[in-house]
Amino acid sequence: MRYTIFGESHGPAIGAVLEGVPAGLALDLDFVQRELDRRAPGRDGLSTARREADRVEVLSGVFDGKTTGAPLCLLIRNSDQHSGDYEAIRYTPRPSHGDYAGFVQSRGCLDYRGGGHFSGRLTAPLVAAGAAAKLLLRERGVTVGAHISAIYGIRDAAPQSAAELLAVGEKEFPVLDDERGREMRQAILDARKEGDSVGGSIECMVSGLPAGLGAPDFGRNVEGIFSQYLFAVPGVKAVEFGAGVAFALMRGSEANDPFAVEDGRVVTETNNAGGVNGGITNGMPVTFEVTLRPTPSISLPQRTVDLRTGEETEIAVKGRHDPCIVHRAVPVIEAAAALAACEVIGI
Amino acid sequence: MRYTIFGESHGPAIGAVLEGVPAGLALDLDFVQRELDRRAPGRDGLSTARREADRVEVLSGVFDGKTTGAPLCLLIRNSDQHSGDYEAIRYTPRPSHGDYAGFVQSRGCLDYRGGGHFSGRLTAPLVAAGAAAKLLLRERGVTVGAHISAIYGIRDAAPQSAAELLAVGEKEFPVLDDERGREMRQAILDARKEGDSVGGSIECMVSGLPAGLGAPDFGRNVEGIFSQYLFAVPGVKAVEFGAGVAFALMRGSEANDPFAVEDGRVVTETNNAGGVNGGITNGMPVTFEVTLRPTPSISLPQRTVDLRTGEETEIAVKGRHDPCIVHRAVPVIEAAAALAACEVIGI
Amino acid sequence: MRYTIFGESHGPAIGAVLEGVPAGLALDLDFVQRELDRRAPGRDGLSTARREADRVEVLSGVFDGKTTGAPLCLLIRNSDQHSGDYEAIRYTPRPSHGDYAGFVQSRGCLDYRGGGHFSGRLTAPLVAAGAAAKLLLRERGVTVGAHISAIYGIRDAAPQSAAELLAVGEKEFPVLDDERGREMRQAILDARKEGDSVGGSIECMVSGLPAGLGAPDFGRNVEGIFSQYLFAVPGVKAVEFGAGVAFALMRGSEANDPFAVEDGRVVTETNNAGGVNGGITNGMPVTFEVTLRPTPSISLPQRTVDLRTGEETEIAVKGRHDPCIVHRAVPVIEAAAALAACEVIGI
Amino acid sequence: MRYTIFGESHGPAIGAVLEGVPAGLALDLDFVQRELDRRAPGRDGLSTARREADRVEVLSGVFDGKTTGAPLCLLIRNSDQHSGDYEAIRYTPRPSHGDYAGFVQSRGCLDYRGGGHFSGRLTAPLVAAGAAAKLLLRERGVTVGAHISAIYGIRDAAPQSAAELLAVGEKEFPVLDDERGREMRQAILDARKEGDSVGGSIECMVSGLPAGLGAPDFGRNVEGIFSQYLFAVPGVKAVEFGAGVAFALMRGSEANDPFAVEDGRVVTETNNAGGVNGGITNGMPVTFEVTLRPTPSISLPQRTVDLRTGEETEIAVKGRHDPCIVHRAVPVIEAAAALAACEVIGI
Repeated sequence: MRYTIFGESHGPAIGAVLEGVPAGLALDLDFVQRELDRRAPGRDGLSTARREADRVEVLSGVFDGKTTGAPLCLLIRNSDQHSGDYEAIRYTPRPSHGDYAGFVQSRGCLDYRGGGHFSGRLTAPLVAAGAAAKLLLRERGVTVGAHISAIYGIRDAAPQSAAELLAVGEKEFPVLDDERGREMRQAILDARKEGDSVGGSIECMVSGLPAGLGAPDFGRNVEGIFSQYLFAVPGVKAVEFGAGVAFALMRGSEANDPFAVEDGRVVTETNNAGGVNGGITNGMPVTFEVTLRPTPSISLPQRTVDLRTGEETEIAVKGRHDPCIVHRAVPVIEAAAALAACEVIGI
Repeated sequence: MRYTIFGESHGPAIGAVLEGVPAGLALDLDFVQRELDRRAPGRDGLSTARREADRVEVLSGVFDGKTTGAPLCLLIRNSDQHSGDYEAIRYTPRPSHGDYAGFVQSRGCLDYRGGGHFSGRLTAPLVAAGAAAKLLLRERGVTVGAHISAIYGIRDAAPQSAAELLAVGEKEFPVLDDERGREMRQAILDARKEGDSVGGSIECMVSGLPAGLGAPDFGRNVEGIFSQYLFAVPGVKAVEFGAGVAFALMRGSEANDPFAVEDGRVVTETNNAGGVNGGITNGMPVTFEVTLRPTPSISLPQRTVDLRTGEETEIAVKGRHDPCIVHRAVPVIEAAAALAACEVIGI
Repeated sequence: MRYTIFGESHGPAIGAVLEGVPAGLALDLDFVQRELDRRAPGRDGLSTARREADRVEVLSGVFDGKTTGAPLCLLIRNSDQHSGDYEAIRYTPRPSHGDYAGFVQSRGCLDYRGGGHFSGRLTAPLVAAGAAAKLLLRERGVTVGAHISAIYGIRDAAPQSAAELLAVGEKEFPVLDDERGREMRQAILDARKEGDSVGGSIECMVSGLPAGLGAPDFGRNVEGIFSQYLFAVPGVKAVEFGAGVAFALMRGSEANDPFAVEDGRVVTETNNAGGVNGGITNGMPVTFEVTLRPTPSISLPQRTVDLRTGEETEIAVKGRHDPCIVHRAVPVIEAAAALAACEVIGI
Repeated sequence: MRYTIFGESHGPAIGAVLEGVPAGLALDLDFVQRELDRRAPGRDGLSTARREADRVEVLSGVFDGKTTGAPLCLLIRNSDQHSGDYEAIRYTPRPSHGDYAGFVQSRGCLDYRGGGHFSGRLTAPLVAAGAAAKLLLRERGVTVGAHISAIYGIRDAAPQSAAELLAVGEKEFPVLDDERGREMRQAILDARKEGDSVGGSIECMVSGLPAGLGAPDFGRNVEGIFSQYLFAVPGVKAVEFGAGVAFALMRGSEANDPFAVEDGRVVTETNNAGGVNGGITNGMPVTFEVTLRPTPSISLPQRTVDLRTGEETEIAVKGRHDPCIVHRAVPVIEAAAALAACEVIGI
């Protein structure tokens, strides 16, 4: 299975094409739509005013409610666009956005309106594709759950089970400990008040993958496959499996996961490895944490360069901006993980 | 360019095949050998007794000292093998090694001797392939340097320039601050005394990549490409670009890198983004840190399972083991980064 | 650059996504539309009644008339569908159509209406994608031309130059020798009268490719690349480069192309090799011929099997069918060749 | 599974690396060697004097006689090289060899000795890789057989069954009708006497592939997959499936393969389609014919260009040359087909 995302924030439509979807999957469009709704802005009082319906349309690949094996095209039409808002950024790139890098890459032919193809809006078709992947995984007993693990230094509780994480996904603000969730929201509101933004992290668990998938080799190892999908999510700057960066503080005797037998099955007593040894699944849940940078869109004035004149200048991005994308990114990370899991399984 | 690593720790030879190497590159074999020597065990008093010469042979792809464009096969013959040492682990997998996952994946047909294809020894051909990649990058003004950033919680100083990192590579124990280096070595020796091991991290900088390479899309974004190469290095469990996990503690106003003009060129005043915005290089050095888990080989007794009987048991890995692989992994991470940089450039 | 075709004959829309299109290309939509019109049925008195407008829409990847480097999605909406016509073939597969193979592949979940994703209609988005490829090639001085080389045994004249072939593309019935064209049309009309169909072949020339592209190796050799694109065109059953099957009748002294110098450039006096030696372009035009099977849709009764009962039965496909697709396939083969040439060049 | 061939005619060794080989396959090295012997020159009185033992060595990927899932490296050492023979062709490319195209591609850094990486000798590791593929296919009931279908216009009889083709493979000169075989040999000897060479064709049948594999789409369709492997064999200039080029002479009523039921299984009465409809296997044997050009190495004088001076000159290739490679190419085409079949199956 291979996915392609197309579209721009202010073009007519955005979408995803999934090739190699196995035939015969009942494509539950209500489920796909619910996943999209989890990502949608505006429902939590924390996001920008743009409220698009984000209705998914199936253009191809489904007949009589089931996938046919032909490429699946999922389309979401754009609306509610205010292209005029973006003229200011055309030649004065916003710091830490894709504006400048994209300008160079496209030799100035960028669609700069609303971030164009770089827009976080492009995570909508990714969620749609991921929803299809989740339905395929469900048939194989594989689930994907995630929660906000931290925002601006405030950490959520640690999940005890895959089931607990699946339940969290239903929440508007997907944390395990709602008290910490309130603190996180306050941190977001504080940042917004000051025209600023905050970063955070998401922890994800893919449960039910059998042992023995993957290989140590380049292109086939499980962590490499997952990371490629995860870094394709805008804003992701770090990916850690299992104990992650904490391994640098550990001794082998703490880090190693002893083997044990549970219900006749080989398991590990701890899961510091995050379910992967030597690039291969070991039957434990694949767990990882991704760090998302603070939204680069802030209304505080920032130093930049006018690309026409080559002179230093300032930019203050106008309009309301999402002071945090971490909570809305939870279904996006799940989607990327679901697509990665399909590749690992060989779907 | 595409690389394939083959071989096992206790087979006749290990090697790498590089396809798509541009023709006309003067393949400086002395340089390749020096890179291999940087990785070689035993030269620092910290590694296991196995001391192989690791001489690289060119089987194909080079004529009159230059690459021909045909696949380049670099071979390293094995020697000094004690296969008998490994019979004990055949059915009692060592915790956090690839033993168990590999056993399941191969349906029991694993070459278990010395880790087989999972062995850290397979990083030797990776270093050889990376050396060829470095020579290609050198022609384009791109350099790759790295240092040990931390071992068992002891952090090295931060590099101030790409040149500084290149110089560090010549050291036996590649740190910027030799005093911290001594502490790290002590931590390693302490762990060894107790039959234990320690983890750490490596910081790497790829300098000279022009702005505008890559894309936000899956399969083409720079962080995704790098991460796939980096996670293919045994023991890597986390990859962070720029400020990495610290982004989760930041506000946008701290995290954003203001643009400025330097020598007529657009630069950023800070490089929290690690040289990548929106999946595309922005002309600043690509910087990242990888975390390596403590070597799973420890001589302390550990709980495991006998795969024949399905019963829980103990294993204490015999022989001398590397209590730390971080210092020797520095050229390996550079090699992976060099290969990734070639893909990003489109070599 | 990589293309994906999606859609079904009787779905809401068909389309193509092109990833990796270089930024800055002026996407001449009139040219794209003209290419689509060359493929459109109904304009020549030889095709079926279905006359769709086949208007191309750009959903993404273009801004201010130029490509941005983001994925280019070209959409063509369907109309004029009579789904009811196809119920008869649901379980009684038409001989030599994709019906049966597709039924098995999709485990019965095929969109059987009008051939679904197997429909010749899916060549429309391929032509649109190929038109974009032609525009990219034009900037590099590469042209793609083709003509009907034979229908039902009646052969057209041989082209003397690339320019001649480009002019032929403008004709409604693209042959060099209009007298032979009239005979071919008569053969088609005769077949139609009898409820039958005819096969034929198309000869194509890609001119302007520099010497030295490709490699002898799998995945990189020029003939392998071209053939993969060509066999993806429905109905293509043979691909021959240069002298093709006639090589089996030849001696080396006849087959070899002597080298000569022309305007200071190395050329070959003949071009039996079709511009490729050892998997690499030699600077001569890449020439090849493809054979297209007769349209399997015929109204004569044919033996088939009822997939529900497993019993042998008969099917006579109702309605008017194209008795020949060769003439309409000329722009399709050119499109496939243009996409292949882009891959060979490394666009 | 993915294969890479490396090496040059006059380098130290040639070889193949196969990635993704399923673990647990008993790698019958005698079988691999026998396949190599079928390709070896000199055993039939028709080939050049170079008689290398072509002994295959397993460098990796096999343990206790079984594949481990790690990359399989098969090595064949070179010997019996007379590099001095080739100095004459360094700057005067032989017509229709890869010499000139390779010279341009490698910017003059070609290993020109004996054709270097372009040498037909590189088909030896391909045969070794194909032998492994055949062993994998055998486990799934898939067989691959081929025969010389024509040499210099003399056609062999048509095979009646897959079994018949497998038996033919044992012959020194693999034809069904030995009388026609004698005529072919005479044509070869006649050509040799005159310092010339002859071309021919090979027909191949892959039997036992289940219906429903592949897809109509680019990159997934069965004919496209096979053709990419087949054109990677040096000298192949045409690939035809089923009736192939004869489709251009046919009507649909002749070309279509009626469905029937045989032993409760859907079959087609004829197999003009060569086992593939709509890019998907239909359960009938996949049959195809490839055309091989006459060996370009002839001792007759030919016109060429001196690449140093840019002046036209003549070359007469010295030494004995194979006047025909078709008979020796039979196991090579089988090998390519076996590797393609593995990809189609998804091994």
